[in-house]
Amino acid sequence: MSIQKLVNQVIMRNENFIETAEELKPQLHETIVKPTSIVAIKADSEAIHGWSSEVVAPASTLSDSEFGKNDLFVLDFGDHQVGYLSLKIRPAGSPPDAPLKLKLTIGEMPVEIAEPFENYKGWLSSSWLQEETIFVDVLPAVITLPRRYSFRYVKFDVIDTSPKYQVVFESVECRAVSSANINTVQKISHQDAELQRMDEISIKTLADCMQDVFEDGPKRDRRLWLGDLRLQALANYETFGNNELVKRCLYLFAGVPDDKGKVSANVFVAPQLIADDTYLFDYSLFFVATLHDYYVATNDLETLKELWPTAYRQIEVALERLDENHILKDSSDWWSFIDWQEGLNKQTPSQGVLIYTMKQAILLAEELNISEKDNLKARLEEIVEASKTHLWDKGQQFFISGTDRQVSWASQIWMVLAGVWTKEENNKLMKHLLAENPEVGIATPYMYHHLVEALLVSGEKDRAIEEMKSYWGGMIQDGADTFWELYDPNNKDFSPYGSNLINSYCHAWSCTPTYLIRKYAL
Amino acid sequence: MSIQKLVNQVIMRNENFIETAEELKPQLHETIVKPTSIVAIKADSEAIHGWSSEVVAPASTLSDSEFGKNDLFVLDFGDHQVGYLSLKIRPAGSPPDAPLKLKLTIGEMPVEIAEPFENYKGWLSSSWLQEETIFVDVLPAVITLPRRYSFRYVKFDVIDTSPKYQVVFESVECRAVSSANINTVQKISHQDAELQRMDEISIKTLADCMQDVFEDGPKRDRRLWLGDLRLQALANYETFGNNELVKRCLYLFAGVPDDKGKVSANVFVAPQLIADDTYLFDYSLFFVATLHDYYVATNDLETLKELWPTAYRQIEVALERLDENHILKDSSDWWSFIDWQEGLNKQTPSQGVLIYTMKQAILLAEELNISEKDNLKARLEEIVEASKTHLWDKGQQFFISGTDRQVSWASQIWMVLAGVWTKEENNKLMKHLLAENPEVGIATPYMYHHLVEALLVSGEKDRAIEEMKSYWGGMIQDGADTFWELYDPNNKDFSPYGSNLINSYCHAWSCTPTYLIRKYAL
Repeated sequence: MSIQKLVNQVIMRNENFIETAEELKPQLHETIVKPTSIVAIKADSEAIHGWSSEVVAPASTLSDSEFGKNDLFVLDFGDHQVGYLSLKIRPAGSPPDAPLKLKLTIGEMPVEIAEPFENYKGWLSSSWLQEETIFVDVLPAVITLPRRYSFRYVKFDVIDTSPKYQVVFESVECRAVSSANINTVQKISHQDAELQRMDEISIKTLADCMQDVFEDGPKRDRRLWLGDLRLQALANYETFGNNELVKRCLYLFAGVPDDKGKVSANVFVAPQLIADDTYLFDYSLFFVATLHDYYVATNDLETLKELWPTAYRQIEVALERLDENHILKDSSDWWSFIDWQEGLNKQTPSQGVLIYTMKQAILLAEELNISEKDNLKARLEEIVEASKTHLWDKGQQFFISGTDRQVSWASQIWMVLAGVWTKEENNKLMKHLLAENPEVGIATPYMYHHLVEALLVSGEKDRAIEEMKSYWGGMIQDGADTFWELYDPNNKDFSPYGSNLINSYCHAWSCTPTYLIRKYAL
Repeated sequence: MSIQKLVNQVIMRNENFIETAEELKPQLHETIVKPTSIVAIKADSEAIHGWSSEVVAPASTLSDSEFGKNDLFVLDFGDHQVGYLSLKIRPAGSPPDAPLKLKLTIGEMPVEIAEPFENYKGWLSSSWLQEETIFVDVLPAVITLPRRYSFRYVKFDVIDTSPKYQVVFESVECRAVSSANINTVQKISHQDAELQRMDEISIKTLADCMQDVFEDGPKRDRRLWLGDLRLQALANYETFGNNELVKRCLYLFAGVPDDKGKVSANVFVAPQLIADDTYLFDYSLFFVATLHDYYVATNDLETLKELWPTAYRQIEVALERLDENHILKDSSDWWSFIDWQEGLNKQTPSQGVLIYTMKQAILLAEELNISEKDNLKARLEEIVEASKTHLWDKGQQFFISGTDRQVSWASQIWMVLAGVWTKEENNKLMKHLLAENPEVGIATPYMYHHLVEALLVSGEKDRAIEEMKSYWGGMIQDGADTFWELYDPNNKDFSPYGSNLINSYCHAWSCTPTYLIRKYAL
């Protein structure tokens, strides 16, 4: 476990930017969704996490049953939902002479329904596990739970009624919410059914993460992270085209930089806009990337002009970390995300991110026709050359990272995306990477996205599709309704948090297949 | 465990009566109460239930501390409260990056705070145990819990925050509610400090049970029972004088009789007025007693006229249960409450209740000057004679009950209250009872009230005070802030429900010392 806690974080609020972001706050679309089935969650050694769902009866039969002390049932909403639950409950038998005590367990995956949350021992807060214990003093009642949940399954444990009465659940429904409008998406009919399905699930994943900001995961952490935003925005341009929401998110980050001008890795929007005290080298630079992509998608010159200083400042701050050889200093207190991969050295992939975003910054500076472009170009040339000199291992034909000269997938991928070598050289490097398969691999869909894009930009389209099919296709095989935060085909119980109960099973950074399919015409 | 469940209960709603009751619905008085101390609940073999409370710090120091995962504290509100809790919580440390999960355990007694509710195995619904587990998604927050609690102590278990932040409880308060107005009570300054304290605690008990009806217990069952109402009304006439509330309760019972005209033992007032499907021989008759006492207190002839038919009907129905000897039929499906005493035969005490209430009915009929009075008088004479003939055991000089000729305290007490013998004979009987101490004793403060009143009406004032001091005085010694539903000085863990966790520690039927002290000028 490793977290960043700053004691002396100083935030320079830009009230104009914050006001612009506030004005762009979207109206949420609401849809009433009813459960489809009553299901049983059964132990199943073939299924992911060891649990599968089995239909017991249509949900429409629910109101035929009376439930008393220790009775339970599980409802399946048929697909992933993000929204608010409401329950219509009436008593059966004598007048209710004691409150109803009801426990709800709300899960995206069967494992969350089957395995007791009490057993959770991970290092992220257990408060993310979705459950409620409610007391109903007066029956009949319509109970509208005030919190938003992210789920497909809901387990109802009737803890107690009284010996004199039972309860009937007349209706259970979800008021699903999203700022995405599904009608704005141009449907595709892909001849490859697997890619077609991948496109659909990507879009569902993105929609469920599109709330009043682009959230990373509607179950956890429910907030705006820059690294996730960049990928969501890319998927959004190809689908929902909700460009105002991207703009809003850019203004949110730009509204609360620190006293050095750095944007934080994530922001909270309630009770008001707050910059988290987590700063990540790569995520700050992705402000540049996200602004770049936004401008390419919209040609919104006014926003570019207003946000350019924020973007440029991220490059300036990043450049301060270069040593005399124009290489990023590596250290033990190094905060760059790149991937959850255990033991990954972040130096070279971060150097790749710097080069990648500097190129985007130069394009934006050219668009603005401002003098910074010349300085950026000069610095870029030095950095690219230095990377070839100091980070490229001719013998191994790989980029190395850190004092231990680590060869990781991430280093090669980011250097390819950064375009340090030519397309042909990159193609050779990617093939070499796939063939050699260095030990320090890829842990997250976020990094898999970059692998696939690196394959695509280096001309390995077929291999890119193959990787997508084995990875996101694997999730589909394993029952994904939306794409997951984490997926390791070789260790399906993987969680960087100490328990897969707390993993998010609808996660923004996994939504990119629709972008990859549509952008690269796969 | 034994409960009454009727399948074919037919209710004849009297909408005029229900409307009258609705118009009499009181406005509740509200008082903001702050906790006095942070306390520790400690194992203490000398204390009731084995737990006592020890002051750790003044409650005003609470906001000096930060609480994180697994931290807990207990607040003491200094006295019994009935009301709504609100908490003002702010985060400390990094911005809250996960919800706060907080468990509240709310208890009238230290035992409720100390012993896990999970261990409760009693036969009443566990849903009465007062606890809440809440998730707070956005901090800082002011949380107003929607349910009403009855308590003195609140335990706060911070189940989880996150590794990045803790919470500070800036304030915790209770919005206490009651329809009793303490300013209307004439204070007494008793030379006997023990009786003075007993009077005060009685009044507090009554006040906390006076909500929009006279509740039996604000923790459990929170509803209007006829047997409790009768005693509350008596205490009320001597103290708060809130006669409108008694009137309202009489109209509530009269509003929902069954198709035979019987009033139920208790009614629910939410979501609307509902008669419970529990009918008790003695409780139905107490409608007569309560109307009688109300009329004596108020001279409200209009109400007497309107409710007389309901009262008279209870006598008529009761008389149907007499056998050819004018003795109540005993049977195994006999529903008369009398007391929670294990093994108690209800025949003779119920015969006593019948005689007691018939005498009150005759007084009311005389007041109304209606012909029923003559019939009632004639029947009463037969019944009293029959009781002397068939239920009095000359050899033992005790009333016996049931086919096993059980000699119980309850039989003697009710026959004394019914005035079957003369005052002198009653005095002899009560002394004989105290001397012989038959095995089938008294289980509840409700029956103790009747013992004390039987001693008072038979001229044993000193002995009555002695009993009050050992019984209600015992509760005070054992730490009562309000008088308890159940108290057995010889078995302080006694509960008829299988666990003292579920006992009510502020219970209407225990509030009568103020009535006894003031009415009989003790």
